[in-house]
Amino acid sequence: MTDKLSIAICQMKVVTNKEDNLETAAQMIKTAANHGAKMIILPEMFNVPYVNKLIVEYAEPITGHSFQRLSKCASENQVLVIGGSIPEREGQSIYNTCYILDETGCLIGKHRKMHLFDIDIPGKISVKESADISAGNHLTVIEHQGLTFGVIICYDCRFPEVARLIALQGAQLLIIPAEFAMTTGQAHWELLMKSRAVDNQLFVIGASAARNSDLSYQSWGHSMVVDPWGEVLCEGTEKETILYADLDLERIDQIRNELPLLRHRRTDLYQVNLTQPKEDTPQ
Amino acid sequence: MTDKLSIAICQMKVVTNKEDNLETAAQMIKTAANHGAKMIILPEMFNVPYVNKLIVEYAEPITGHSFQRLSKCASENQVLVIGGSIPEREGQSIYNTCYILDETGCLIGKHRKMHLFDIDIPGKISVKESADISAGNHLTVIEHQGLTFGVIICYDCRFPEVARLIALQGAQLLIIPAEFAMTTGQAHWELLMKSRAVDNQLFVIGASAARNSDLSYQSWGHSMVVDPWGEVLCEGTEKETILYADLDLERIDQIRNELPLLRHRRTDLYQVNLTQPKEDTPQ
Repeated sequence: MTDKLSIAICQMKVVTNKEDNLETAAQMIKTAANHGAKMIILPEMFNVPYVNKLIVEYAEPITGHSFQRLSKCASENQVLVIGGSIPEREGQSIYNTCYILDETGCLIGKHRKMHLFDIDIPGKISVKESADISAGNHLTVIEHQGLTFGVIICYDCRFPEVARLIALQGAQLLIIPAEFAMTTGQAHWELLMKSRAVDNQLFVIGASAARNSDLSYQSWGHSMVVDPWGEVLCEGTEKETILYADLDLERIDQIRNELPLLRHRRTDLYQVNLTQPKEDTPQ
Repeated sequence: MTDKLSIAICQMKVVTNKEDNLETAAQMIKTAANHGAKMIILPEMFNVPYVNKLIVEYAEPITGHSFQRLSKCASENQVLVIGGSIPEREGQSIYNTCYILDETGCLIGKHRKMHLFDIDIPGKISVKESADISAGNHLTVIEHQGLTFGVIICYDCRFPEVARLIALQGAQLLIIPAEFAMTTGQAHWELLMKSRAVDNQLFVIGASAARNSDLSYQSWGHSMVVDPWGEVLCEGTEKETILYADLDLERIDQIRNELPLLRHRRTDLYQVNLTQPKEDTPQ
């Protein structure tokens, strides 16, 4: 198992033009790799503004241009890329999908957002992601070169069951490409990142897009890395930036020995379980 | 269902003498009742310093003096008393038990701490509650005059499964008599209170003892009430005090309608379940 891991979050400013977004991502990944990062994380919907109409329009199959570009970023820079998410088309369905690419550009996993963001706070925010996007039906935990990490997307992080199940599958890192809105970001973003880390005693990496005041959906930003004791290792503002952190993975065992939360769970009294795996069903 | 609820937390300074503690609790309950509180909450181990030796020594059966005194506090002031906790002796076992007494002084429920606090952070804190105390085996959710609330004790709050199960049983309030230590209190107390409230969209009432520098175990204090959006309605310092809050219970439905977290859980993919109830087994 690796003991140290250098990661980078590309908190990029997403614009309307897809090609421009892919280019920004490629440049930021290159910069982060040159800076020594071995795992580089992009935000949710990094190639498209968070607007249902554009998400539908920009959707691509897994063989599409955006995937190819990401794969090339990984192989050219020899880094692990957690590709935030893009709208993925399969059959008549569109998913909010994160591709995970290894140092040779090969796909080693993908996560389709499992919980769709339908919210209606009068006068503040109203979003209905489920109008155009289908939900994924799988938990994503990846083992790669001795490292185990889970990937969830944005609203998935609201559900403590998900982080818990990922921790129980041995994850050392919980990676969360996201794009929290202003209202919910200000109220809950930091709280959620920290509480998932503290409850499960693992590293949490929350990767948001930067805020772009030209777009209708305003991102909260504030990407951050939280350690297993709940300490913030790095945090962005709302502006475009690359955040770096060196994760000392031995902290996980240390904290789990000192305060053995996972061992103290009363599994004789309650359990969190995955039900039978369910296929995604493109229509 | 009641729409408004006036509550008070008695953040009392626990001292070595049991009778003095019972008297302090009685006085604070009377003051809070006169102030209009309808539900009054005491801290964990309010009649004994948090030291295993004294906990064993002070332990009483449910018919004991401390229970009688609490019952009288409830009936004389016609308030609902959430009696923090005291060491309860049954057979050869001692439990960390919260008695819940209605406005006539009748016992309407009790909670025995389910998770025992065994922690060892070198140079900071080392506690082994399980050396002398037995764990309870039951979730505690109480319905009383149209109000539904769960009661857990201190370390129980570290386990998100517990709060979730209580919320799923319809609780509007999660009440947590506690006595966090300095290290864990500073690091995690507020985070835990807020995250249980936000994840489950209910009110969280965390009732700590005040700090007493004469005792070996130092309480973090900072009792607080958090609303279902994560806003702190009131918070203490480390000093002895009574905290008051008026809970607008309609906030629960409002927030659950705006951001339907409980409805958005993917119960087709994962579930949190209680296993078969297990009897406590006094030896």
